[in-house]
Amino acid sequence: RRAEMAKSTQLIDNEVFRAYATYTAIVLLKMMLMSLITAYFRITRKAFVNPEDTASFGKGESAKKYLRTDPDVERARRGHLNDLENIVPFVGIGLLYALSGPELSTALLHFRIFTGARILHTFAYLIPLPQPGRGLSWAVGYSVTFSMAYKVLKTAWLL
Amino acid sequence: RRAEMAKSTQLIDNEVFRAYATYTAIVLLKMMLMSLITAYFRITRKAFVNPEDTASFGKGESAKKYLRTDPDVERARRGHLNDLENIVPFVGIGLLYALSGPELSTALLHFRIFTGARILHTFAYLIPLPQPGRGLSWAVGYSVTFSMAYKVLKTAWLL
Amino acid sequence: RRAEMAKSTQLIDNEVFRAYATYTAIVLLKMMLMSLITAYFRITRKAFVNPEDTASFGKGESAKKYLRTDPDVERARRGHLNDLENIVPFVGIGLLYALSGPELSTALLHFRIFTGARILHTFAYLIPLPQPGRGLSWAVGYSVTFSMAYKVLKTAWLL
Repeated sequence: RRAEMAKSTQLIDNEVFRAYATYTAIVLLKMMLMSLITAYFRITRKAFVNPEDTASFGKGESAKKYLRTDPDVERARRGHLNDLENIVPFVGIGLLYALSGPELSTALLHFRIFTGARILHTFAYLIPLPQPGRGLSWAVGYSVTFSMAYKVLKTAWLL
Repeated sequence: RRAEMAKSTQLIDNEVFRAYATYTAIVLLKMMLMSLITAYFRITRKAFVNPEDTASFGKGESAKKYLRTDPDVERARRGHLNDLENIVPFVGIGLLYALSGPELSTALLHFRIFTGARILHTFAYLIPLPQPGRGLSWAVGYSVTFSMAYKVLKTAWLL
Repeated sequence: RRAEMAKSTQLIDNEVFRAYATYTAIVLLKMMLMSLITAYFRITRKAFVNPEDTASFGKGESAKKYLRTDPDVERARRGHLNDLENIVPFVGIGLLYALSGPELSTALLHFRIFTGARILHTFAYLIPLPQPGRGLSWAVGYSVTFSMAYKVLKTAWLL
């Protein structure tokens, strides 16, 4: 019984893994927030894509006019897709990185910079900030994931 | 040799992890199914996006007319993207949750409700069911992932 | 101290897991490369979607004309989305598969075929190759993930 509990909690007892778990949960929650932001813009701008979503606005033409695109909705959706494109590699490569035995301080540096960069990226996209604000925050997150991938490949390499 | 085998199978021997593996495989296979549904609609509705995909319909204008969008194809694609947006956080946060030492019964409750909600969401999107059918199934899955993230952050918190 | 290090590195000491880590890092880096290819086409074709991205081309109409879609940009974006749809299931199911105790040679066969198929898929999409080049490379990767999911469900099944 004790052995079983030890087994189930051993990874979560490791400090680097705990840091990975904390930052991964934060960036995935941040990504999930994009759904709420898109829904907020769809409702306030009355801009929908599915006919069944506009049924409460009446029937026929009166509802059909809300089947349209809106710049704010599209912007939030692009931010969400950009999160998917960048946070998925972070979560996958970050897990392998956390298991490759990095120093806690080095790992924290990677996780913190990535998380900060992605939060900045979201603000830069939604406000929007003038370029190169969004571009730079994207590049910083990208570079962190790249750096972790390098460590993973150096440690684990078995082709 | 025995130690090595023990190492490689220990996580999979843990019941919570086995439940996580089972439900994660199911929801990822369900997500992969969306590719086949999209392909089915593209072929039956003759609605393609890449010129090289319509080459078998002849050359020039006779093939070009099949480069078009179709409501059923677009609906399946939106369902697929919604899966990516919601199943990716489940898989990432669910892994950390499974390693955070939850009770098996609590973990099963989370995994089962999420999986059921996402299967309902797909039916609600593709049939389509009147709202709030799709909205509710989305919100249930979202809430389950949120609940797991709360447990992960409470257990692992190291910022 | 030694026990702690052992804990943190045990998974990465397992050969199947090392192979998983290597191929996962490679396919995720390949997926990340799609961002750079899209950016390359956006800049060389001068085809942007965010008004703030065209500010350096001047103000008003002179910048607005670069807010447009371009076939090469859209093609790279479709390749990127297809990667997300297929590499996410590989990374998730592949992790569970690597922990389900497969033979190293069988695991390597799965990882190598998937990685080769996805690299071919990218070339088939971007060149583009005539069909069924892209379709076949997609189907091969899809089948590999399906085969790993079968092994995971057979080993871990707990519903």
